[in-house]
Amino acid sequence: MYDHLMNSYDKSLSHSGVSGERLAKRLHAVSRIGLTGDDGSRRIAFSPEEQQAKDLVKDWMKKAGLQVTQDGAGNVIGRIEGKSSTATVMSGSHLDSVPNGGHFDGPLGVLAALEVAQSWKDENIVPEKSYEVIVFTDEEGARFNSGLTGSQAMTGEWTEEEKQNLRDENGLTFEQVLEENQLSLQTFREAKRSFDNIEAFVEVHIEQGKKLEKADLPVGVVQGIAGPSWLNVSFKGAAGHAGNTPMDDRQDALVAAGKFVSLVEKLPRKFNRTCVATVGKLEVKPNGVNVIPGEVNLTVDIRDIHEDTRDTLRDAIMLLAKEIASARKILIEVEEIMNVAPVQVTKEMQQKASNAAETVLNKKPLFLPSGAGHDAMIIGRKTDVAMLFTRSKDGVSHNPAEWSSLNDCVETVHVLKVLLEDLCSASK
Amino acid sequence: MYDHLMNSYDKSLSHSGVSGERLAKRLHAVSRIGLTGDDGSRRIAFSPEEQQAKDLVKDWMKKAGLQVTQDGAGNVIGRIEGKSSTATVMSGSHLDSVPNGGHFDGPLGVLAALEVAQSWKDENIVPEKSYEVIVFTDEEGARFNSGLTGSQAMTGEWTEEEKQNLRDENGLTFEQVLEENQLSLQTFREAKRSFDNIEAFVEVHIEQGKKLEKADLPVGVVQGIAGPSWLNVSFKGAAGHAGNTPMDDRQDALVAAGKFVSLVEKLPRKFNRTCVATVGKLEVKPNGVNVIPGEVNLTVDIRDIHEDTRDTLRDAIMLLAKEIASARKILIEVEEIMNVAPVQVTKEMQQKASNAAETVLNKKPLFLPSGAGHDAMIIGRKTDVAMLFTRSKDGVSHNPAEWSSLNDCVETVHVLKVLLEDLCSASK
Repeated sequence: MYDHLMNSYDKSLSHSGVSGERLAKRLHAVSRIGLTGDDGSRRIAFSPEEQQAKDLVKDWMKKAGLQVTQDGAGNVIGRIEGKSSTATVMSGSHLDSVPNGGHFDGPLGVLAALEVAQSWKDENIVPEKSYEVIVFTDEEGARFNSGLTGSQAMTGEWTEEEKQNLRDENGLTFEQVLEENQLSLQTFREAKRSFDNIEAFVEVHIEQGKKLEKADLPVGVVQGIAGPSWLNVSFKGAAGHAGNTPMDDRQDALVAAGKFVSLVEKLPRKFNRTCVATVGKLEVKPNGVNVIPGEVNLTVDIRDIHEDTRDTLRDAIMLLAKEIASARKILIEVEEIMNVAPVQVTKEMQQKASNAAETVLNKKPLFLPSGAGHDAMIIGRKTDVAMLFTRSKDGVSHNPAEWSSLNDCVETVHVLKVLLEDLCSASK
Repeated sequence: MYDHLMNSYDKSLSHSGVSGERLAKRLHAVSRIGLTGDDGSRRIAFSPEEQQAKDLVKDWMKKAGLQVTQDGAGNVIGRIEGKSSTATVMSGSHLDSVPNGGHFDGPLGVLAALEVAQSWKDENIVPEKSYEVIVFTDEEGARFNSGLTGSQAMTGEWTEEEKQNLRDENGLTFEQVLEENQLSLQTFREAKRSFDNIEAFVEVHIEQGKKLEKADLPVGVVQGIAGPSWLNVSFKGAAGHAGNTPMDDRQDALVAAGKFVSLVEKLPRKFNRTCVATVGKLEVKPNGVNVIPGEVNLTVDIRDIHEDTRDTLRDAIMLLAKEIASARKILIEVEEIMNVAPVQVTKEMQQKASNAAETVLNKKPLFLPSGAGHDAMIIGRKTDVAMLFTRSKDGVSHNPAEWSSLNDCVETVHVLKVLLEDLCSASK
């Protein structure tokens, strides 16, 4: 991976204490932990691989002069005390991955935040305000089908009930998995921090989409993080023999679901250009070649950075399901199983990020929404956040083919550095 | 079950040696073997339950004066030698069930054929031609996802290759399962019979549909057995993040599949009224709530009693899949994984069955297609076949709620008896 990153690297981008070579070496070193047969990443949350990656980053944090701690949720915190203020600015991301993911989703945000700290050390800069590099535990949620665990612990926005219901694929409870990691529900509770003194959190992340690629820009400024509404939709018709039931005497749950899926796709564009709706998961019962499907259970993932449009779209999708079912005499159940409010990045934070991008790129930056949830969405409920997106090759992510050029990564670090120097009042 | 059968029984139907009470007792006794918690049947092929049911029927065969053998495939054969001819007429069905099936699919056909033999014994009738009651092994195919095993063995129409690929849910091979039953591939081969002397096979079966119920008739005459064509269809698009991929930049395999499923349903009625098409099985990859489906694999079950219409319908469905995929820039693979030719019941056999039904019911009978495959479909490639369908309550089958009234079952036995007396030249 190191050679691949360095091949097309423009070495003139290594300046002001920021080193593309160091960033490439570190991205490479993290990528070797949990490397899969497909050259992908497998660093499942709460696994030995996730901890091994954290330990490596902790060593680098110490070299950058940070005070390193690991909290009761496993979040790693590397801190520089501010010259004149205990007000704190944080930056970071996560090191866990999906089961066969890429090498940028998470690690780039951690290593970019660390590269800024290292550059300050190398240039003898101590910021006026305190600065923390954060590695959040379990952002992806591959262990328990959940996610954003570390940032939830830090804000305290979680319930015992939701954690008690979690089971990993071996049937282990959340508490058992914490204990495997020398943690407990008690330490997890203690990971909650006061945000009174935390002024901002900035997260660098790959775009996981193609907007920057289409605009030919290395880095973009996030306007807001779309909060998902998730629906469970269940169509209940009547199973029957595929050979002996005439076409006009069927209550085929899959035909209803098929029509629903094909029409859901057409709805978002009727509302606005940022909202999306996806039927990602669909299961048929009994799922036999020669049996008319009696039941179909599916999910709809609906997102927008604007809560009102998203909820209007959600209501239209719920109505569509009911209309299709009723026209076919099929029972329908629709339940909203998750509703996370979108997080707006304040105009002021967008402006600061935009100023930093313009300083570095000498161009007006692209503003774009984040369709995916990130730790910044959780932290954004407690303090101001900003996000910078790095261009993703072909928009691919959660996949071994995920890629961002080292040039784009280093440009992003420069933008982050300028932004953090603004937020932390740091200068030579 | 016995009480439930007898509750609404019209005892005047017990005459001419046919006993509704005996039939009810026997249906009840078979239903106790492999009774499930839902009051359904679980007599998986090659299980101890299937053999236990066969052993019970073998005892009753002996009481009816039949010579009983079990062949190298486990088929039970109970034979009466004809008074003046070695030409043979067979009737029967199967005793195995789907995992949680009903109590009529299979057993009714076996016990109806046996009831005719018993009635002849009780009335001192010996037919001119020989008569055999048959219990075919493994009609349903629940053990290996296959089926029609016993009738295939008897006709010799099977290949070693297809049997070698079979595995049950414990990973056992077909040969290992035969050995568990004191059989072998060698004995299975030896179960092949010459059909030179076998003049006809008649199978009684529940309708598994609602046509007789709608026509208010207890029994109907089958015109032909629809042969299925099975397609595997695979739509391959591009997985992507459900939040970060704009609606106009997706290759969602499930949207394509959904449109396909909803349009497949509309095609059969464009061809004729007997053909049907069903997408019964559908699987989504990666099947995550927040991931755009990259791949959908589904099956289509296409049937008609007319081979030409069925194949035209199949071609139209294949074309539809290709058109939908091509319009959405999605890759498509379509493969026909099974193609069984429909079996026509000859006009002569239909006429004989119809005469018998009219004699018993004093009404013109209903002619109807069999959408499901039966052992008669396999045997029909070697000799003349007829099938009688008994009315099914609400058309339900392969389900504990499967039901036919004892009146309808006994009426069917009377029709079968008249038909077999015609075919076997039997009279007082």
